[in-house]
Amino acid sequence: KRKKELTADDLVAGIIKQDKVALSRAITIVESTNPRHTEKAAAIIKKCLPYANKSVRVGITGVPGVGKSTFIEALGKYLTSTGKKVAVLAVDPSSSVTRGSILGDKTRMEELVKDRNAFIRPSASGDSLGGVARKTRESIILCEAGGYDTIIIETVGVGQSETAVHSMVDFFLLLKLAGAGDELQGIKRGIMEMADAIIINKADGENTKAAKRAKTEFTRALQLYPPKENSWVPKVTVASAIENTGIRESWELVMTYMAQSKKSNYFEHHRIEQNKYWLLQTIDEQLRSGFYNHKAVKKQLQEQLEAVANNEITPFEAARYLLDLIKEQS
Amino acid sequence: KRKKELTADDLVAGIIKQDKVALSRAITIVESTNPRHTEKAAAIIKKCLPYANKSVRVGITGVPGVGKSTFIEALGKYLTSTGKKVAVLAVDPSSSVTRGSILGDKTRMEELVKDRNAFIRPSASGDSLGGVARKTRESIILCEAGGYDTIIIETVGVGQSETAVHSMVDFFLLLKLAGAGDELQGIKRGIMEMADAIIINKADGENTKAAKRAKTEFTRALQLYPPKENSWVPKVTVASAIENTGIRESWELVMTYMAQSKKSNYFEHHRIEQNKYWLLQTIDEQLRSGFYNHKAVKKQLQEQLEAVANNEITPFEAARYLLDLIKEQS
Repeated sequence: KRKKELTADDLVAGIIKQDKVALSRAITIVESTNPRHTEKAAAIIKKCLPYANKSVRVGITGVPGVGKSTFIEALGKYLTSTGKKVAVLAVDPSSSVTRGSILGDKTRMEELVKDRNAFIRPSASGDSLGGVARKTRESIILCEAGGYDTIIIETVGVGQSETAVHSMVDFFLLLKLAGAGDELQGIKRGIMEMADAIIINKADGENTKAAKRAKTEFTRALQLYPPKENSWVPKVTVASAIENTGIRESWELVMTYMAQSKKSNYFEHHRIEQNKYWLLQTIDEQLRSGFYNHKAVKKQLQEQLEAVANNEITPFEAARYLLDLIKEQS
Repeated sequence: KRKKELTADDLVAGIIKQDKVALSRAITIVESTNPRHTEKAAAIIKKCLPYANKSVRVGITGVPGVGKSTFIEALGKYLTSTGKKVAVLAVDPSSSVTRGSILGDKTRMEELVKDRNAFIRPSASGDSLGGVARKTRESIILCEAGGYDTIIIETVGVGQSETAVHSMVDFFLLLKLAGAGDELQGIKRGIMEMADAIIINKADGENTKAAKRAKTEFTRALQLYPPKENSWVPKVTVASAIENTGIRESWELVMTYMAQSKKSNYFEHHRIEQNKYWLLQTIDEQLRSGFYNHKAVKKQLQEQLEAVANNEITPFEAARYLLDLIKEQS
């Protein structure tokens, strides 16, 4: 017997009642690429919007091996122990290809998964960052409507996804290890400048000393950066997710930031700016995808790129030529 | 009697003969917004292309007050004294509004202006960065055809123009002062990560000690950054443009970089990537400008932005709504 399909209203009612199963199903519909779900997803989001926007949104990034999931589990447990409701989402456009390095293996956060005040959701699948980011951003709305007051967005610090995550959170946290060498190889330039705080993780045992030294070094380095728009000076601290030290201190940084940010009205201003960013970003993406999927462009783009590479034509001439193809045909 | 207008062929012949007047006039045509000049500009550029791509292109940035023009003049004089031919261009989209803070006042480089092996050109005017950057990039081609083997592109380190300049040069140089405090206020985040070298300028008199200390600090800080694609580690040095010290050393950094970059073939690869970047960038710009200048979009964009700001609609829904306006009408 086929299970009765829940309506948008049913699902939203469930979400508001803080029913995890309803939330899960609703997110599945939001994430669906099935056109049949588009309208239902839009209806769910619309009904959730009045309940949204009420959480603290924190992005956490760091290269593989830095101990992200252990840290997030420790942080999540700490937060629920103080009465918070925590949702953990992820943005990793590659996860559908690599079979989900990120949050895909739920056993990585075994304890947090069992916590009734935590909700963990692997990265949406999809091969375009734009698509995955959009789904995650809409899932945030649903989680907030479901009563989650703290949203953690995990991402791997090696690709384009950090900019996307940075643009959907209030606070951006970069995990690092002491002994910058190897660990730095994978991380993308520019991420350090996005960070509101750097946590030197695995500050335990033999690493303790090196971690403290790294803290001093990064603190000095961050002072050389230009100040942020909101005049927040990024902080550096040490933590050991395994020994459960520095977790509370890490969260206190977030709270200090939130207090300052709300007091100065930067918080609200920033969220509005983020919304505008996503509006303009989505338009850009759609315009580009329309252009590059145009038959004539598809056929001639490679040739133009080669002519440009061989200096037979300037990039501007090539662009004009390609843009004219679209005009002719429409 | 009206002066006979030179043809594209005349101008190109003049450029190749290293005639500064012909070069100047040709650049004026390239910079012109008069549609009558579009075809002529394209013809000039096309004919110059085979002679292009043969110079070292260096971007120089730094906030006002850091001593950019004095530094560029000292560097330019040094280069011409070693037999180089130096062209100095600028990217500053605001210069047409502010009446040209940058290179506009030619007296700022009095000596270099008189140097027969130097060619100095103020920033093209225009209120869009894309337009100004495009004109500068095409002027580079003309200068190279005119025998200039060293192109210096000046920009102010306070806006969006650094990314544009960074994408048209081989080496990006950031000028700074010792005593980071005030001077940093104006500089945009992200610029430090673009720099291939940082020069602590005004390292003279009472500043000498502080400049050396700054050198040590920045060297340490830069080591904490992720490595660059070409594995170049950004260098830091001190200079005094007024006392003419550290100028040769600054240039030697560029030469070391060039040798390494050519040996590894990164140089060629990077120039091709830059060309592709400008092709894609121009397409993006044109698509956006077509969209935002569309009548229906212009009429409704503000309303949608407000709805998004008030959380009445998600940014994605608003984007879809606006994109549909275009489809309906075409």
